[in-house]
Amino acid sequence: MNKRKVEKNCAGGFAASLGERKIIELMREYFDVMPDLAVPFGDDVSAVPVGDGEVAVLKTDMLVEKTDVPRGMSLWQAARKAIVMNVSDFAAKGVEPKAVLVSLGLPRNLMRKDLEEIAKGLNAGARQYGAYIVGGDTGEASDLIISVNLFGTAKKDALMLRSGARVGDIVAVTGFFGKSAAGLQLLLNELSVSDALREVLVGAVCMPQARLKEGLALQRSEAVTASIDSSDGLAWSLHELAKLSSVGFMVTGLPVADEVKRFAEFNGLDACELALYGGEEYELVVTVNSKMWAEAETAVEAVGGRLLPIGKATRDKRVVLDVDGEKRVIEARGWEHFKSNY
Amino acid sequence: MNKRKVEKNCAGGFAASLGERKIIELMREYFDVMPDLAVPFGDDVSAVPVGDGEVAVLKTDMLVEKTDVPRGMSLWQAARKAIVMNVSDFAAKGVEPKAVLVSLGLPRNLMRKDLEEIAKGLNAGARQYGAYIVGGDTGEASDLIISVNLFGTAKKDALMLRSGARVGDIVAVTGFFGKSAAGLQLLLNELSVSDALREVLVGAVCMPQARLKEGLALQRSEAVTASIDSSDGLAWSLHELAKLSSVGFMVTGLPVADEVKRFAEFNGLDACELALYGGEEYELVVTVNSKMWAEAETAVEAVGGRLLPIGKATRDKRVVLDVDGEKRVIEARGWEHFKSNY
Repeated sequence: MNKRKVEKNCAGGFAASLGERKIIELMREYFDVMPDLAVPFGDDVSAVPVGDGEVAVLKTDMLVEKTDVPRGMSLWQAARKAIVMNVSDFAAKGVEPKAVLVSLGLPRNLMRKDLEEIAKGLNAGARQYGAYIVGGDTGEASDLIISVNLFGTAKKDALMLRSGARVGDIVAVTGFFGKSAAGLQLLLNELSVSDALREVLVGAVCMPQARLKEGLALQRSEAVTASIDSSDGLAWSLHELAKLSSVGFMVTGLPVADEVKRFAEFNGLDACELALYGGEEYELVVTVNSKMWAEAETAVEAVGGRLLPIGKATRDKRVVLDVDGEKRVIEARGWEHFKSNY
Repeated sequence: MNKRKVEKNCAGGFAASLGERKIIELMREYFDVMPDLAVPFGDDVSAVPVGDGEVAVLKTDMLVEKTDVPRGMSLWQAARKAIVMNVSDFAAKGVEPKAVLVSLGLPRNLMRKDLEEIAKGLNAGARQYGAYIVGGDTGEASDLIISVNLFGTAKKDALMLRSGARVGDIVAVTGFFGKSAAGLQLLLNELSVSDALREVLVGAVCMPQARLKEGLALQRSEAVTASIDSSDGLAWSLHELAKLSSVGFMVTGLPVADEVKRFAEFNGLDACELALYGGEEYELVVTVNSKMWAEAETAVEAVGGRLLPIGKATRDKRVVLDVDGEKRVIEARGWEHFKSNY
């Protein structure tokens, strides 16, 4: 499989110039809106009422080898990742995934070993988070495409939406940032780091972990006012929470992973940049009612996770980083298909 | 969009040699099976218990422009068809679709008009059958990929499965066959037919109709013992019902559309072949308890449809066509990705 690599595709066109988010916005204008939709269009998941205050929670996210699978990631890892990135959205809403359906677009030249690897990776991803693969579809495509669909159920009122943060809430994350961005740099460029560091950083790219147990624990704590995952980058996630909750954030402790600081120093890169704008990370970014901080923290620690406070929700609608009193605005940019090329 | 065409891709490889169904079979071996799955893996839909005898009904089917969209079909039609082919599976199980999620793989060179056409086609397909688009995902891909995911709910016991036909049941269909296959020939080859005939046959390809109201009516009639849609062809559907119900079929009236007979005669083709093995048709193929035939027929006619008896379920496990006493075996072949090239 040496030929598999992430292609840098620069061909123009409207789709290329618009970027993923604008495309979705444009298309949504033509969709009739379901009258009783339980979660606003554009949140991490969709939710459809099924009676009795219950909702069916649905999510689809497509992995395309050409843009989402860097050189060095195996097919098993890619298939598993396709599940993880969907589970991460369920985690952010506090919903347990039950069933997975997979649509596969397969290039004709795949070998038996490749198909087995994909199947095993899909199953491993689903089972790691307690879900089962219950169906799917297979067809021929030029790229390897793994479109995953997740299903679960929840009480409508229990969903942690993007829109609920209030001024004074504590904004917190479930881990340190920047490892995926640094790992991707390692996979794509000739950079020298120690084997141990390489293992951690490349591991973050190839074996991402969804924070499901943390998300479920946070949901049970009832302390969370808004939640999102960080697959498009920490900066983007903060801006989404800010926009949909009509608040801003003052970030006083940027949660940069130690390994990322070391990697950045060694290679003359900006660690904060990697942590804020890297994306492809699956931590949760949540706001917590400050009076219930202890409950939230205890709940996450009880399942073996950690909850790191990084700042406060503010009346000022900007997202600002305060490093030892020096303030700078965190820009609303992150990973985006079509626009981001790596 | 003149460049869009169905490519004949003959590059080899294991996936190519195996065919879609064998690939699915091979991969399924690596999937842990959900203990309380309400519908066996491989039926038209998946169904997951959600309590109280209710199941969530889930389906995903992916349209790939390169293999599924012939020259002459617009993007609006292709997007609508991606919905219709999923709704057809719900129709076969007697389940109302509620919500649609769409994963789109978009080539970079798509224009605004293309995106709008796709969005409008998706919405038109969903709304025609009472469903709403509630979410989705967009990414960059070499082919245009439209992966549709359908959600609905049903009483577990009310689902019309593939496995339930009994010897003596009447096998019936909701319409005449062969138009899509003939229409596809017209789109791909230079064949001359009258404008009126062309309109009907090409219309069958470009504007397929799912038999949802028929499927729901048949479900309510409680007369159906087994059901499948005919998207892989009539022959294939009969064989699937036969295999999963452990019966055979004696088909005494092959439901060939008049337009197909005319088209075949004019072009020196075999009309029966087109009707049996063409595929990409969305009629329902059902078996009906012979004592309840009237109920089934009345139910379908009451919603403006028709139910055509075409034969009987037999103890002999073969699927046989009887034309005026001359019997020939109907082969178990139909449309299949990777293997079928048009």
